[in-house]
This record gives sequence, structure tokens and C-alpha cells, in this order.
Amino acid sequence: MPDILHRFEVKASPADAYRALATLEGLAGWWTTDTRGSTAVGGVIEFVFGTRGKIDMKVLEAQPDKRVLWQVLAGPDAWAGTTVGFELRQDGDYTVVLFKHEGWKEPSEMMHHCTTKWAVFLLSIKALVETGTGTPFPNDVHITGSGD
Amino acid sequence: MPDILHRFEVKASPADAYRALATLEGLAGWWTTDTRGSTAVGGVIEFVFGTRGKIDMKVLEAQPDKRVLWQVLAGPDAWAGTTVGFELRQDGDYTVVLFKHEGWKEPSEMMHHCTTKWAVFLLSIKALVETGTGTPFPNDVHITGSGD
Repeated sequence: MPDILHRFEVKASPADAYRALATLEGLAGWWTTDTRGSTAVGGVIEFVFGTRGKIDMKVLEAQPDKRVLWQVLAGPDAWAGTTVGFELRQDGDYTVVLFKHEGWKEPSEMMHHCTTKWAVFLLSIKALVETGTGTPFPNDVHITGSGD
Repeated sequence: MPDILHRFEVKASPADAYRALATLEGLAGWWTTDTRGSTAVGGVIEFVFGTRGKIDMKVLEAQPDKRVLWQVLAGPDAWAGTTVGFELRQDGDYTVVLFKHEGWKEPSEMMHHCTTKWAVFLLSIKALVETGTGTPFPNDVHITGSGD
């Protein structure tokens, strides 16, 4: 099965990077300003994108400063059965972030789109952690004519 | 084998998008300012990234306003045997760009990195075509501490 795999580095500690992935305030700072729910293991985080839709993630793993893994409970049809994970590793003054969105059934155009759009949001994580300001929805960079 | 797959839309005609992919001036406007060689089928395009390295691509296909396909002749070790392709399709006022970097032997960290970095350069294509100004090397967005 095809996977979406990304890697980037942020000039910050793993603890600072982890905060962006494992707290509602952090997540609201880079993915969507309307983020609700619980980031604890077993909890459900709701990511609301206005009238464009909603993604619910069940938190499967949350190892401080190391790893976050979510299971998609609700979202785009093509996301059914997929998981989204982040692994953190310190490297000098930087934290390496490995991102994996796994379990896609096929390499559809939707998967191509999500690969690019994830990059937009991962760069938003980098900006948030390094500068304090990300570009979460509805201030995200659009890569389609329909505003996605 | 894992592939890097991206999709984005540019507000421009397929002809304008194609120019960014199939002319030295276009390529120099989004990937690296130091782009040399021949973009004709059978030709070799040299993409020079200062002291950071050089990528040579043999042009396998160049179908005006529709498709470009390159074979990697020289570049990072992990790129050996891979191809890079762009497919264009008009959709109203936009052109859909499907990108594929195929033939990777394994989903290495280098592949993760290149997925994210390709997004940076694909957003540079979008900016170039829509505004006339991209962010080619050495003005590209860095996603690692070492300046990649």
C-alpha cells in the first residue's frame, strides 16, 4: 500500500515540537484553528475545517517528546483505515520530524493532493515551533482552485 | 516500490505551466537558477545547486502542454534508477499538475526528505506560473538545519 512520507527539521527541542503535536493549543496553531477534544491516549481530537469538513482522530500513541500516532475515525472517504504518525528525534539544535500517513488503499489523485497539502501544514508546524506563528486553516496556503 | 506523488493546481493554462517545465528559463525560475543543457527529447538538462551538488536529467518525454518525463542520470545516490514526471490537465481556469518521482528502492529518510522538499519546489512552480516569481535555489525554503 502506498504511504505519504515526509521529513523536516525544526530548530527547537523535541519537547517544543511535541507540544505542537500533543496539545490542543499546539494543533490549533498549525492545522486548524478550530481544534477540540482530548489529546490523551484513547481520546479523540476533532479537527474542524469550517464548512469544508471535519476530521476525527483517535490518539493511539502519545510518547512525550518522541512519538504521536492517530487513527482516522472520520474524514475524507479515502482516509478510512489510515493512520497518521509523527516521530521526533533530536539532532543537535534541531528536532527531526518523520511523518507517515499510512494505510491508503490506492495512489489516487486524492492521495497525491494530500501529500502536497500535508507539506503545506508541516511547513506550518515548522513556522509555529520556530517563530510562534503557523498558518492553520483558514489561513492555510491553497493548492487548488476550489480552496483546498 | 514507493513513489513520491504530488498534486496541485495552478491558475494558468497548460501552455503556461508547460513552459515552466520544458524551457531552461522556466526551470531556472523555480528549481535552481543555474539550469543548463537541452530540454528537447533526448537532451540532458543539468540542474546545478552551487556547491551542494548537481542533478542531470535525460528528457524522455516532452509532449507540449501535456507531459514531461525525465530520467535521472546523475544526482543523489538514492535517485539512481528513478524518473521524475509531470502530467498536465486543464480544469476550467486552472491546470492540474500531477507529479511522480518513481523508482525508489526503499522508503528511506532521504525519500521522506525529498517528498517534503519537492513540495517546496512545486509551490515554487505555482508561484512562478501565477505571479512570475518562484523561489528557486539558492532562494528556496530550507527544511533542514544543514540548509537543504
